[in-house]
Amino acid sequence: MKPFTFFLVGVATMAGLVTLVAAPRGHADGEPAAPYVTEIPQGYRDWRWISSAHEAGNLNSLGAVLGNDVAFKAFRDGKLPYPDGSIIAALHYRNVPSDENNMVFGQAQSFVPGAPTNIQFMVKDSKKYAATGGWGFAHFADGKPGDATFMKSCFPCHEKTKATDLVFTHYAP
Amino acid sequence: MKPFTFFLVGVATMAGLVTLVAAPRGHADGEPAAPYVTEIPQGYRDWRWISSAHEAGNLNSLGAVLGNDVAFKAFRDGKLPYPDGSIIAALHYRNVPSDENNMVFGQAQSFVPGAPTNIQFMVKDSKKYAATGGWGFAHFADGKPGDATFMKSCFPCHEKTKATDLVFTHYAP
Repeated sequence: MKPFTFFLVGVATMAGLVTLVAAPRGHADGEPAAPYVTEIPQGYRDWRWISSAHEAGNLNSLGAVLGNDVAFKAFRDGKLPYPDGSIIAALHYRNVPSDENNMVFGQAQSFVPGAPTNIQFMVKDSKKYAATGGWGFAHFADGKPGDATFMKSCFPCHEKTKATDLVFTHYAP
Repeated sequence: MKPFTFFLVGVATMAGLVTLVAAPRGHADGEPAAPYVTEIPQGYRDWRWISSAHEAGNLNSLGAVLGNDVAFKAFRDGKLPYPDGSIIAALHYRNVPSDENNMVFGQAQSFVPGAPTNIQFMVKDSKKYAATGGWGFAHFADGKPGDATFMKSCFPCHEKTKATDLVFTHYAP
């Protein structure tokens, strides 16, 4: 699999090491910004399934969490913290009733993924994303990354799940 | 991947071809029974994700549908009917609130897979399962296959989705 790339914002060369850093769009106040991921990791739709989730209320979402091989193995084996190279994808869709299924069941009981709403990623790189617990966060709606203000909300929320290395999702056996 | 096996009930040899048929347990009225699958296909937990589903009401289920490589490709490419060798797995769990997530969200909105309830499979073999639309059905709770009476209910229900080759689930993009 071709490694995914970042929008190249700054290049630091030190002892022959080139570090690519993605910075929030519109960031211009001179402070070092927490980096986040601005390109969709390739091949994520083929990753293995970690779990499903349904968010009721305003989100009204139904989706799945997938993991690349590194993340999947860590989930399955209960390995914490997640090793560098782990990428977790959360695929979100509108939670919609399935008329087709309900007709067969004879009652309104079946809910399925409707239109995609967004895709979110967590990319583990303990050096690159040291400022946000080792995780680079990503959010894409219609293929476009979330803006800097939106992205700032990821880490403070995920930080509340320190016991599971900032990851909410548990592996479904 | 080692091909999964069936409980060997009858062996017919014709022109050198050995056919393994799984028959419902307890079947003893002499009529040829519709075969169903009585062993869990190996490696299914590593298959790729087709979609998620939430069944409300009495089922109160949250889960995922996974496909082996043959089935996954057919789903993704919208190929109908599903080719022989397709296996579809439906992993079902209790739909339970996530106290952990809800504490972070500050409201009761998050539902996740709880205890596993059952795993169901559809195995495409247009010859072996000709009597049930080319699909062998399977249901396992606590690792044990459903009994003959229960298994008889699979085909009549799935037969109502002829337009999609007896498959309810649609691929989530």
